[in-house]
Amino acid sequence: MSGADSLRALLAGLPALEPGHVWLAGAGPGGPEHLTLQALVGLLQADAVIYDALVDDRVLALANPGAERIFAGKRGGKPSAVQTDITARLVALAGAGRRVLRLKGGDPFVFGRGGEEVLTLAAHGVPFRVIPGITAGLAALAAASIPATLRGVNQAIVFATGHGAEDQSGLNWRTLARLGQPIVLYMAMRTLGTIAAALIEGGLAPSTPVAVIASATTPEERILITTLREAPAAVEREGIAPPAIVAIGKIVAFREQIAALMPRIEENVRWFRAG
Amino acid sequence: MSGADSLRALLAGLPALEPGHVWLAGAGPGGPEHLTLQALVGLLQADAVIYDALVDDRVLALANPGAERIFAGKRGGKPSAVQTDITARLVALAGAGRRVLRLKGGDPFVFGRGGEEVLTLAAHGVPFRVIPGITAGLAALAAASIPATLRGVNQAIVFATGHGAEDQSGLNWRTLARLGQPIVLYMAMRTLGTIAAALIEGGLAPSTPVAVIASATTPEERILITTLREAPAAVEREGIAPPAIVAIGKIVAFREQIAALMPRIEENVRWFRAG
Repeated sequence: MSGADSLRALLAGLPALEPGHVWLAGAGPGGPEHLTLQALVGLLQADAVIYDALVDDRVLALANPGAERIFAGKRGGKPSAVQTDITARLVALAGAGRRVLRLKGGDPFVFGRGGEEVLTLAAHGVPFRVIPGITAGLAALAAASIPATLRGVNQAIVFATGHGAEDQSGLNWRTLARLGQPIVLYMAMRTLGTIAAALIEGGLAPSTPVAVIASATTPEERILITTLREAPAAVEREGIAPPAIVAIGKIVAFREQIAALMPRIEENVRWFRAG
Repeated sequence: MSGADSLRALLAGLPALEPGHVWLAGAGPGGPEHLTLQALVGLLQADAVIYDALVDDRVLALANPGAERIFAGKRGGKPSAVQTDITARLVALAGAGRRVLRLKGGDPFVFGRGGEEVLTLAAHGVPFRVIPGITAGLAALAAASIPATLRGVNQAIVFATGHGAEDQSGLNWRTLARLGQPIVLYMAMRTLGTIAAALIEGGLAPSTPVAVIASATTPEERILITTLREAPAAVEREGIAPPAIVAIGKIVAFREQIAALMPRIEENVRWFRAG
Protein backbone atom coordinates (compact mmCIF):
# COMPACT_ATOMS: atom_id res chain seq x y z
CA MET A 1 0.00 0.00 0.00
CA SER A 2 1.55 3.29 -1.06
CA GLY A 3 1.43 6.01 1.55
CA ALA A 4 1.97 3.59 4.46
CA ASP A 5 5.16 5.37 5.47
CA SER A 6 3.54 8.79 5.44
CA LEU A 7 0.69 7.35 7.49
CA ARG A 8 3.10 5.99 10.08
CA ALA A 9 4.84 9.36 10.25
CA LEU A 10 1.52 11.14 10.57
CA LEU A 11 0.27 8.94 13.42
CA ALA A 12 3.61 9.35 15.23
CA GLY A 13 3.20 13.13 14.97
CA LEU A 14 -0.28 13.29 16.47
CA PRO A 15 -0.80 14.12 20.16
CA ALA A 16 -0.07 11.10 22.38
CA LEU A 17 -2.22 9.68 25.16
CA GLU A 18 -0.16 10.38 28.28
CA PRO A 19 -0.11 8.43 31.55
CA GLY A 20 -2.76 9.73 33.94
CA HIS A 21 -4.81 11.26 31.16
CA VAL A 22 -8.28 10.29 29.91
CA TRP A 23 -9.41 10.63 26.32
CA LEU A 24 -13.16 10.64 25.85
CA ALA A 25 -13.39 9.46 22.26
CA GLY A 26 -16.14 8.69 19.79
CA ALA A 27 -15.83 5.32 18.05
CA GLY A 28 -18.27 6.29 15.33
CA PRO A 29 -21.47 4.47 14.45
CA GLY A 30 -20.37 0.91 13.73
CA GLY A 31 -17.47 -0.66 11.90
CA PRO A 32 -13.88 0.59 12.11
CA GLU A 33 -14.04 2.45 8.78
CA HIS A 34 -15.52 5.51 10.52
CA LEU A 35 -12.91 5.66 13.27
CA THR A 36 -10.79 8.84 13.22
CA LEU A 37 -7.02 8.78 13.26
CA GLN A 38 -6.93 10.45 16.69
CA ALA A 39 -9.26 7.82 18.19
CA LEU A 40 -7.06 5.19 16.55
CA VAL A 41 -3.98 6.66 18.26
CA GLY A 42 -5.89 6.40 21.54
CA LEU A 43 -6.67 2.73 20.90
CA LEU A 44 -3.08 1.92 19.98
CA GLN A 45 -1.66 3.68 23.06
CA ALA A 46 -4.20 3.08 25.84
CA ASP A 47 -3.44 0.84 28.84
CA ALA A 48 -7.15 0.70 29.66
CA VAL A 49 -10.13 0.97 27.32
CA ILE A 50 -13.57 1.51 28.88
CA TYR A 51 -16.17 0.96 26.19
CA ASP A 52 -19.92 1.02 25.70
CA ALA A 53 -22.30 -1.58 24.30
CA LEU A 54 -22.44 0.11 20.89
CA VAL A 55 -18.69 -0.07 20.24
CA ASP A 56 -17.93 -2.62 17.50
CA ASP A 57 -15.66 -5.62 18.20
CA ARG A 58 -13.59 -4.76 15.13
CA VAL A 59 -12.83 -1.37 16.68
CA LEU A 60 -11.84 -2.92 20.00
CA ALA A 61 -9.57 -5.36 18.15
CA LEU A 62 -7.32 -2.39 17.28
CA ALA A 63 -6.48 -1.79 20.94
CA ASN A 64 -3.03 -2.58 22.27
CA PRO A 65 -3.13 -6.36 23.02
CA GLY A 66 -1.87 -5.65 26.56
CA ALA A 67 -4.62 -3.12 27.31
CA GLU A 68 -7.25 -3.84 29.92
CA ARG A 69 -10.71 -3.88 28.29
CA ILE A 70 -13.59 -2.81 30.54
CA PHE A 71 -17.19 -3.09 29.39
CA ALA A 72 -19.34 -0.21 30.63
CA GLY A 73 -22.54 -0.92 28.74
CA LYS A 74 -25.68 -0.08 30.63
CA ARG A 75 -27.61 -3.08 31.92
CA GLY A 76 -30.40 -3.62 34.35
CA GLY A 77 -32.22 -0.34 34.79
CA LYS A 78 -30.01 1.55 37.18
CA PRO A 79 -28.43 4.03 34.76
CA SER A 80 -27.35 6.61 37.30
CA ALA A 81 -25.66 4.12 39.62
CA VAL A 82 -23.82 2.60 36.69
CA GLN A 83 -22.85 6.04 35.37
CA THR A 84 -21.34 6.87 38.78
CA ASP A 85 -19.40 3.61 38.67
CA ILE A 86 -18.00 4.42 35.23
CA THR A 87 -16.79 7.88 36.14
CA ALA A 88 -15.30 6.62 39.43
CA ARG A 89 -13.45 3.97 37.45
CA LEU A 90 -12.08 6.57 35.01
CA VAL A 91 -10.82 8.72 37.88
CA ALA A 92 -9.24 5.70 39.65
CA LEU A 93 -7.47 4.44 36.51
CA ALA A 94 -6.10 7.89 35.68
CA GLY A 95 -5.04 8.35 39.31
CA ALA A 96 -3.06 5.10 39.02
CA GLY A 97 -1.14 6.58 36.10
CA ARG A 98 -2.83 4.59 33.37
CA ARG A 99 -3.40 5.86 29.84
CA VAL A 100 -7.19 5.73 29.72
CA LEU A 101 -9.38 5.64 26.63
CA ARG A 102 -13.10 6.10 27.29
CA LEU A 103 -14.66 4.92 24.05
CA LYS A 104 -18.29 5.68 23.27
CA GLY A 105 -20.40 4.90 20.21
CA GLY A 106 -20.92 7.80 17.81
CA ASP A 107 -19.77 11.17 19.16
CA PRO A 108 -19.12 11.42 22.91
CA PHE A 109 -20.89 14.78 23.22
CA VAL A 110 -24.09 13.86 21.29
CA PHE A 111 -26.72 12.15 23.46
CA GLY A 112 -23.96 10.22 25.20
CA ARG A 113 -23.56 11.64 28.72
CA GLY A 114 -20.03 12.71 27.81
CA GLY A 115 -20.60 16.03 29.58
CA GLU A 116 -21.20 14.32 32.90
CA GLU A 117 -18.03 12.27 32.54
CA VAL A 118 -15.95 15.30 31.64
CA LEU A 119 -17.33 17.25 34.60
CA THR A 120 -16.34 14.46 37.02
CA LEU A 121 -12.86 14.25 35.51
CA ALA A 122 -12.40 18.01 35.84
CA ALA A 123 -13.67 17.94 39.44
CA HIS A 124 -10.94 15.39 40.25
CA GLY A 125 -8.27 17.29 38.36
CA VAL A 126 -7.82 14.56 35.75
CA PRO A 127 -6.50 15.94 32.44
CA PHE A 128 -8.80 14.95 29.59
CA ARG A 129 -9.43 15.48 25.88
CA VAL A 130 -12.61 15.06 23.91
CA ILE A 131 -12.07 13.34 20.54
CA PRO A 132 -15.12 13.77 18.31
CA GLY A 133 -16.56 10.78 16.45
CA ILE A 134 -18.93 10.34 13.52
CA THR A 135 -22.35 10.69 15.11
CA ALA A 136 -24.90 7.98 14.24
CA GLY A 137 -27.39 10.48 12.80
CA LEU A 138 -25.03 11.77 10.13
CA ALA A 139 -23.64 8.30 9.38
CA ALA A 140 -27.17 6.99 8.91
CA LEU A 141 -28.06 9.83 6.53
CA ALA A 142 -24.90 9.27 4.47
CA ALA A 143 -25.56 5.52 4.32
CA ALA A 144 -29.10 6.16 3.09
CA SER A 145 -28.05 8.82 0.50
CA ILE A 146 -30.06 11.47 2.38
CA PRO A 147 -28.29 14.84 2.60
CA ALA A 148 -28.64 16.54 5.98
CA THR A 149 -29.06 19.82 4.14
CA LEU A 150 -30.13 20.68 0.60
CA ARG A 151 -30.06 24.13 -1.00
CA GLY A 152 -33.54 25.49 -1.42
CA VAL A 153 -35.01 22.83 0.89
CA ASN A 154 -33.71 23.43 4.41
CA GLN A 155 -31.55 25.92 6.28
CA ALA A 156 -31.31 23.86 9.46
CA ILE A 157 -31.42 20.31 10.74
CA VAL A 158 -32.55 19.29 14.21
CA PHE A 159 -31.05 16.38 16.14
CA ALA A 160 -33.41 15.28 18.91
CA THR A 161 -33.66 12.39 21.33
CA GLY A 162 -36.86 10.37 21.56
CA HIS A 163 -35.94 9.42 25.12
CA GLY A 164 -38.43 11.06 27.49
CA ALA A 165 -40.58 12.34 24.63
CA GLU A 166 -43.74 11.95 26.75
CA ASP A 167 -42.34 14.39 29.31
CA GLN A 168 -44.30 17.64 28.97
CA SER A 169 -41.46 19.68 30.44
CA GLY A 170 -39.06 18.57 27.71
CA LEU A 171 -38.89 19.33 24.02
CA ASN A 172 -41.99 20.98 22.54
CA TRP A 173 -42.66 18.79 19.49
CA ARG A 174 -45.44 21.07 18.25
CA THR A 175 -43.08 24.06 18.11
CA LEU A 176 -40.54 21.83 16.40
CA ALA A 177 -43.17 20.93 13.78
CA ARG A 178 -43.87 24.63 13.18
CA LEU A 179 -40.16 25.22 12.53
CA GLY A 180 -40.62 23.11 9.38
CA GLN A 181 -37.01 21.88 9.22
CA PRO A 182 -35.92 18.23 8.94
CA ILE A 183 -35.56 16.24 12.15
CA VAL A 184 -33.16 13.42 12.98
CA LEU A 185 -34.27 11.33 15.95
CA TYR A 186 -32.02 9.22 18.18
CA MET A 187 -33.40 6.57 20.58
CA ALA A 188 -36.96 7.01 19.37
CA MET A 189 -38.11 3.42 18.74
CA ARG A 190 -40.25 3.33 21.88
CA THR A 191 -41.68 6.85 21.60
CA LEU A 192 -42.12 7.20 17.84
CA GLY A 193 -45.94 7.02 18.10
CA THR A 194 -46.07 9.88 20.61
CA ILE A 195 -43.61 11.97 18.60
CA ALA A 196 -45.31 11.43 15.23
CA ALA A 197 -48.71 12.36 16.71
CA ALA A 198 -47.31 15.54 18.29
CA LEU A 199 -45.54 16.58 15.08
CA ILE A 200 -48.75 16.07 13.06
CA GLU A 201 -50.71 18.07 15.67
CA GLY A 202 -48.08 20.79 15.33
CA GLY A 203 -48.71 21.01 11.62
CA LEU A 204 -46.35 18.61 9.85
CA ALA A 205 -48.14 16.85 6.99
CA PRO A 206 -48.95 13.19 7.74
CA SER A 207 -47.43 12.43 4.32
CA THR A 208 -44.05 13.89 5.33
CA PRO A 209 -41.39 11.38 4.17
CA VAL A 210 -39.65 9.39 6.90
CA ALA A 211 -36.63 7.10 6.79
CA VAL A 212 -35.85 4.68 9.60
CA ILE A 213 -32.22 3.53 9.45
CA ALA A 214 -31.43 0.69 11.85
CA SER A 215 -27.91 -0.44 12.75
CA ALA A 216 -26.45 2.11 10.32
CA THR A 217 -23.10 1.16 8.76
CA THR A 218 -23.15 -2.36 10.23
CA PRO A 219 -23.84 -5.64 8.37
CA GLU A 220 -27.33 -5.57 9.97
CA GLU A 221 -28.20 -2.18 8.48
CA ARG A 222 -31.84 -1.82 7.35
CA ILE A 223 -33.48 1.20 5.73
CA LEU A 224 -37.24 1.64 5.85
CA ILE A 225 -38.88 4.44 3.85
CA THR A 226 -42.33 5.46 5.04
CA THR A 227 -44.37 8.52 6.04
CA LEU A 228 -44.91 10.31 9.32
CA ARG A 229 -48.42 8.86 9.67
CA GLU A 230 -47.34 5.29 8.85
CA ALA A 231 -43.95 5.24 10.57
CA PRO A 232 -44.93 3.92 14.05
CA ALA A 233 -46.94 0.99 12.61
CA ALA A 234 -44.31 0.29 9.95
CA VAL A 235 -41.55 0.09 12.56
CA GLU A 236 -43.60 -2.37 14.59
CA ARG A 237 -44.64 -4.45 11.58
CA GLU A 238 -41.05 -4.69 10.30
CA GLY A 239 -39.68 -5.45 13.75
CA ILE A 240 -37.12 -2.65 13.62
CA ALA A 241 -35.09 -2.71 16.83
CA PRO A 242 -32.67 -0.20 18.34
CA PRO A 243 -30.21 1.22 17.58
CA ALA A 244 -32.07 3.15 14.90
CA ILE A 245 -32.13 6.68 13.53
CA VAL A 246 -35.30 8.31 12.19
CA ALA A 247 -35.08 11.07 9.57
CA ILE A 248 -38.18 13.19 9.02
CA GLY A 249 -38.67 15.76 6.26
CA LYS A 250 -38.30 16.63 2.59
CA ILE A 251 -34.61 15.66 2.56
CA VAL A 252 -35.76 12.01 2.77
CA ALA A 253 -37.41 12.31 -0.66
CA PHE A 254 -33.94 12.95 -2.13
CA ARG A 255 -33.18 9.26 -1.69
CA GLU A 256 -36.08 8.36 -3.99
CA GLN A 257 -34.71 10.76 -6.63
CA ILE A 258 -31.37 8.98 -6.44
CA ALA A 259 -32.99 5.54 -6.40
CA ALA A 260 -34.97 6.36 -9.57
CA LEU A 261 -31.69 7.18 -11.31
CA MET A 262 -29.76 4.25 -9.80
CA PRO A 263 -31.92 1.15 -9.61
CA ARG A 264 -29.14 -0.71 -7.83
CA ILE A 265 -28.89 1.74 -4.94
CA GLU A 266 -29.63 -1.04 -2.42
CA GLU A 267 -26.73 -3.11 -3.71
CA ASN A 268 -24.47 -0.10 -3.61
CA VAL A 269 -25.33 0.51 0.00
CA ARG A 270 -24.93 -3.14 0.89
CA TRP A 271 -21.52 -3.26 -0.80
CA PHE A 272 -20.29 -0.79 1.71
CA ARG A 273 -21.46 -2.79 4.68
CA ALA A 274 -19.70 -5.99 3.68
CA GLY A 275 -16.45 -5.24 5.55
CA MET B 1 4.17 1.49 17.33
CA SER B 2 2.27 -1.59 18.44
CA GLY B 3 -0.80 -2.41 16.43
CA ALA B 4 0.73 -1.24 13.13
CA ASP B 5 0.29 -4.67 11.59
CA SER B 6 -3.35 -4.92 12.62
CA LEU B 7 -3.89 -1.42 11.21
CA ARG B 8 -2.39 -2.43 7.88
CA ALA B 9 -4.61 -5.52 7.80
CA LEU B 10 -7.65 -3.44 8.73
CA LEU B 11 -7.06 -0.85 5.98
CA ALA B 12 -6.51 -3.63 3.42
CA GLY B 13 -9.86 -5.13 4.43
CA LEU B 14 -11.90 -1.96 3.98
CA PRO B 15 -13.84 -1.31 0.77
CA ALA B 16 -11.54 -0.11 -2.03
CA LEU B 17 -11.99 2.89 -4.30
CA GLU B 18 -12.58 1.28 -7.72
CA PRO B 19 -11.80 2.74 -11.17
CA GLY B 20 -14.69 4.79 -12.49
CA HIS B 21 -16.12 5.36 -9.02
CA VAL B 22 -16.41 8.61 -7.05
CA TRP B 23 -16.20 8.82 -3.28
CA LEU B 24 -17.67 11.97 -1.81
CA ALA B 25 -15.79 12.12 1.47
CA GLY B 26 -15.61 14.46 4.43
CA ALA B 27 -12.11 15.53 5.42
CA GLY B 28 -13.24 16.70 8.84
CA PRO B 29 -12.79 20.18 10.26
CA GLY B 30 -9.05 20.83 10.04
CA GLY B 31 -5.96 18.78 10.69
CA PRO B 32 -5.56 15.11 9.73
CA GLU B 33 -6.32 13.81 13.23
CA HIS B 34 -10.06 13.92 12.51
CA LEU B 35 -9.83 12.04 9.21
CA THR B 36 -11.66 8.69 9.21
CA LEU B 37 -10.00 5.46 8.12
CA GLN B 38 -12.36 5.17 5.12
CA ALA B 39 -11.49 8.67 3.91
CA LEU B 40 -7.84 7.77 4.43
CA VAL B 41 -8.25 4.70 2.19
CA GLY B 42 -9.75 7.02 -0.43
CA LEU B 43 -6.74 9.34 -0.22
CA LEU B 44 -4.26 6.48 -0.47
CA GLN B 45 -6.00 4.92 -3.48
CA ALA B 46 -7.34 7.86 -5.51
CA ASP B 47 -5.92 8.79 -8.94
CA ALA B 48 -7.61 12.19 -8.71
CA VAL B 49 -8.45 14.25 -5.63
CA ILE B 50 -10.82 17.22 -6.08
CA TYR B 51 -10.71 19.27 -2.90
CA ASP B 52 -12.24 22.38 -1.38
CA ALA B 53 -10.62 25.44 0.15
CA LEU B 54 -11.21 24.19 3.70
CA VAL B 55 -9.28 20.94 3.27
CA ASP B 56 -6.00 21.05 5.22
CA ASP B 57 -2.64 20.65 3.45
CA ARG B 58 -1.66 17.94 5.93
CA VAL B 59 -4.67 15.92 4.81
CA LEU B 60 -3.81 16.35 1.12
CA ALA B 61 -0.24 15.27 1.86
CA LEU B 62 -1.61 11.77 2.56
CA ALA B 63 -2.77 11.35 -1.04
CA ASN B 64 -0.99 8.98 -3.38
CA PRO B 65 2.01 10.99 -4.68
CA GLY B 66 0.97 10.17 -8.26
CA ALA B 67 -2.59 11.44 -7.81
CA GLU B 68 -3.79 14.50 -9.67
CA ARG B 69 -4.80 17.22 -7.19
CA ILE B 70 -7.55 19.56 -8.35
CA PHE B 71 -8.54 22.61 -6.32
CA ALA B 72 -12.28 23.31 -6.42
CA GLY B 73 -12.52 26.10 -3.87
CA LYS B 74 -15.09 28.73 -4.64
CA ARG B 75 -13.69 32.06 -5.80
CA GLY B 76 -15.02 35.15 -7.42
CA GLY B 77 -18.73 35.20 -6.73
CA LYS B 78 -20.08 32.80 -9.30
CA PRO B 79 -20.92 29.86 -7.06
CA SER B 80 -23.38 28.11 -9.35
CA ALA B 81 -21.18 28.20 -12.44
CA VAL B 82 -18.28 26.83 -10.42
CA GLN B 83 -20.49 24.10 -8.89
CA THR B 84 -21.48 22.98 -12.41
CA ASP B 85 -17.81 22.86 -13.39
CA ILE B 86 -16.98 20.70 -10.37
CA THR B 87 -19.69 18.12 -10.99
CA ALA B 88 -18.86 18.01 -14.74
CA ARG B 89 -15.25 17.34 -13.79
CA LEU B 90 -16.23 14.52 -11.43
CA VAL B 91 -18.32 12.88 -14.15
CA ALA B 92 -15.55 13.25 -16.76
CA LEU B 93 -12.86 11.81 -14.49
CA ALA B 94 -15.02 8.85 -13.50
CA GLY B 95 -15.94 8.30 -17.16
CA ALA B 96 -12.22 8.12 -17.97
CA GLY B 97 -11.89 5.26 -15.48
CA ARG B 98 -10.14 7.21 -12.75
CA ARG B 99 -10.51 6.51 -9.04
CA VAL B 100 -11.95 9.83 -7.92
CA LEU B 101 -11.98 11.25 -4.41
CA ARG B 102 -14.13 14.34 -3.93
CA LEU B 103 -12.88 15.72 -0.65
CA LYS B 104 -14.88 18.35 1.23
CA GLY B 105 -14.28 20.04 4.57
CA GLY B 106 -16.35 18.68 7.47
CA ASP B 107 -19.13 16.30 6.44
CA PRO B 108 -20.11 16.25 2.74
CA PHE B 109 -23.84 16.22 3.50
CA VAL B 110 -23.88 19.09 6.05
CA PHE B 111 -24.13 22.54 4.43
CA GLY B 112 -21.74 21.37 1.70
CA ARG B 113 -23.76 20.93 -1.51
CA GLY B 114 -22.94 17.23 -1.42
CA GLY B 115 -26.53 16.43 -2.38
CA GLU B 116 -26.22 18.30 -5.67
CA GLU B 117 -22.99 16.51 -6.54
CA VAL B 118 -24.48 13.09 -5.74
CA LEU B 119 -27.56 13.84 -7.85
CA THR B 120 -25.41 14.73 -10.87
CA LEU B 121 -23.32 11.58 -10.43
CA ALA B 122 -26.46 9.44 -10.25
CA ALA B 123 -27.92 11.16 -13.32
CA HIS B 124 -24.79 10.17 -15.25
CA GLY B 125 -24.77 6.63 -13.88
CA VAL B 126 -21.52 7.14 -12.00
CA PRO B 127 -21.23 4.79 -8.98
CA PHE B 128 -20.58 6.78 -5.84
CA ARG B 129 -20.28 6.45 -2.07
CA VAL B 130 -20.72 9.07 0.63
CA ILE B 131 -18.09 8.85 3.36
CA PRO B 132 -19.15 10.91 6.40
CA GLY B 133 -16.67 13.26 8.05
CA ILE B 134 -16.50 15.03 11.39
CA THR B 135 -18.69 18.08 10.90
CA ALA B 136 -17.22 21.42 11.97
CA GLY B 137 -20.03 22.13 14.44
CA LEU B 138 -19.41 19.04 16.53
CA ALA B 139 -15.63 19.38 16.27
CA ALA B 140 -15.86 22.97 17.48
CA LEU B 141 -18.03 21.99 20.46
CA ALA B 142 -15.63 19.19 21.45
CA ALA B 143 -12.64 21.53 21.13
CA ALA B 144 -14.37 24.06 23.38
CA SER B 145 -15.50 21.47 25.99
CA ILE B 146 -19.15 22.23 25.21
CA PRO B 147 -21.37 19.12 25.06
CA ALA B 148 -23.91 19.19 22.23
CA THR B 149 -26.42 17.66 24.65
CA LEU B 150 -26.65 17.60 28.44
CA ARG B 151 -29.15 15.61 30.50
CA GLY B 152 -31.68 17.89 32.08
CA VAL B 153 -30.64 20.80 29.86
CA ASN B 154 -31.58 19.99 26.26
CA GLN B 155 -33.33 17.24 24.32
CA ALA B 156 -32.32 18.55 20.89
CA ILE B 157 -29.65 20.56 19.12
CA VAL B 158 -30.21 22.60 15.98
CA PHE B 159 -27.60 23.03 13.25
CA ALA B 160 -28.41 26.05 11.10
CA THR B 161 -26.70 28.05 8.39
CA GLY B 162 -26.38 31.81 8.73
CA HIS B 163 -26.17 32.08 4.94
CA GLY B 164 -29.29 33.84 3.65
CA ALA B 165 -30.52 34.59 7.17
CA GLU B 166 -32.11 37.85 5.98
CA ASP B 167 -34.34 35.90 3.56
CA GLN B 168 -37.87 35.97 4.97
CA SER B 169 -38.82 32.78 3.11
CA GLY B 170 -36.09 30.82 4.85
CA LEU B 171 -35.64 29.68 8.44
CA ASN B 172 -37.99 31.30 10.96
CA TRP B 173 -35.55 32.42 13.67
CA ARG B 174 -38.36 33.52 16.01
CA THR B 175 -39.90 30.03 15.98
CA LEU B 176 -36.41 28.63 16.52
CA ALA B 177 -36.05 30.89 19.57
CA ARG B 178 -39.35 29.61 20.95
CA LEU B 179 -38.10 26.02 20.63
CA GLY B 180 -35.62 26.91 23.41
CA GLN B 181 -32.99 24.37 22.35
CA PRO B 182 -29.29 25.13 21.71
CA ILE B 183 -28.30 26.30 18.24
CA VAL B 184 -25.07 25.73 16.33
CA LEU B 185 -24.57 28.19 13.47
CA TYR B 186 -22.41 27.63 10.41
CA MET B 187 -21.36 30.49 8.09
CA ALA B 188 -22.92 33.15 10.27
CA MET B 189 -20.15 35.75 10.59
CA ARG B 190 -21.86 38.18 8.19
CA THR B 191 -25.41 37.66 9.44
CA LEU B 192 -24.88 37.26 13.18
CA GLY B 193 -26.41 40.66 13.97
CA THR B 194 -29.62 39.82 12.10
CA ILE B 195 -29.83 36.37 13.66
CA ALA B 196 -29.16 37.53 17.22
CA ALA B 197 -31.82 40.24 16.93
CA ALA B 198 -34.40 37.79 15.57
CA LEU B 199 -33.65 35.24 18.29
CA ILE B 200 -34.03 37.89 21.00
CA GLU B 201 -37.29 39.07 19.41
CA GLY B 202 -38.44 35.44 19.44
CA GLY B 203 -37.87 35.27 23.17
CA LEU B 204 -34.31 34.09 23.80
CA ALA B 205 -32.78 35.99 26.71
CA PRO B 206 -30.17 38.56 25.61
CA SER B 207 -27.92 37.06 28.31
CA THR B 208 -28.02 33.60 26.66
CA PRO B 209 -24.41 32.34 26.60
CA VAL B 210 -22.70 32.24 23.21
CA ALA B 211 -19.40 30.72 22.11
CA VAL B 212 -17.75 31.67 18.83
CA ILE B 213 -15.18 29.08 17.80
CA ALA B 214 -13.06 30.16 14.82
CA SER B 215 -10.85 27.80 12.82
CA ALA B 216 -11.74 24.91 15.13
CA THR B 217 -9.06 22.23 15.54
CA THR B 218 -6.46 24.21 13.57
CA PRO B 219 -3.42 26.06 14.97
CA GLU B 220 -5.40 29.30 14.43
CA GLU B 221 -8.29 28.19 16.65
CA ARG B 222 -9.85 30.95 18.78
CA ILE B 223 -12.69 30.65 21.26
CA LEU B 224 -14.71 33.70 22.27
CA ILE B 225 -17.27 33.44 25.09
CA THR B 226 -19.94 36.11 25.06
CA THR B 227 -23.72 36.58 25.18
CA LEU B 228 -26.40 36.73 22.51
CA ARG B 229 -26.73 40.51 22.94
CA GLU B 230 -22.98 41.15 22.81
CA ALA B 231 -21.96 38.53 20.23
CA PRO B 232 -22.18 40.59 17.00
CA ALA B 233 -20.14 43.48 18.44
CA ALA B 234 -17.67 41.10 20.10
CA VAL B 235 -17.04 39.27 16.83
CA GLU B 236 -16.34 42.56 15.07
CA ARG B 237 -14.18 43.94 17.88
CA GLU B 238 -12.08 40.75 18.06
CA GLY B 239 -11.79 40.53 14.29
CA ILE B 240 -13.08 36.94 14.17
CA ALA B 241 -13.04 35.77 10.54
CA PRO B 242 -14.60 32.73 8.84
CA PRO B 243 -14.57 29.80 9.14
CA ALA B 244 -16.28 30.03 12.51
CA ILE B 245 -18.98 28.15 14.41
CA VAL B 246 -21.37 29.89 16.82
CA ALA B 247 -22.94 27.93 19.70
CA ILE B 248 -25.94 29.50 21.44
CA GLY B 249 -27.59 28.22 24.60
CA LYS B 250 -27.17 26.89 28.12
CA ILE B 251 -24.76 24.18 26.98
CA VAL B 252 -22.17 26.95 26.49
CA ALA B 253 -22.18 27.65 30.24
CA PHE B 254 -20.85 24.13 30.78
CA ARG B 255 -17.46 25.31 29.55
CA GLU B 256 -17.30 27.85 32.37
CA GLN B 257 -18.05 25.09 34.89
CA ILE B 258 -15.14 23.08 33.50
CA ALA B 259 -12.88 26.14 33.34
CA ALA B 260 -13.57 26.92 37.02
CA LEU B 261 -12.38 23.42 37.91
CA MET B 262 -9.46 23.40 35.47
CA PRO B 263 -7.74 26.77 35.39
CA ARG B 264 -5.46 25.55 32.61
CA ILE B 265 -8.25 24.66 30.21
CA GLU B 266 -6.88 27.04 27.59
CA GLU B 267 -3.50 25.32 27.63
CA ASN B 268 -5.20 21.94 27.40
CA VAL B 269 -7.07 23.00 24.33
CA ARG B 270 -4.00 24.53 22.75
CA TRP B 271 -1.99 21.37 23.34
CA PHE B 272 -4.30 19.55 21.06
CA ARG B 273 -3.86 22.01 18.23
CA ALA B 274 -0.08 21.86 18.15
CA GLY B 275 0.14 18.98 15.63
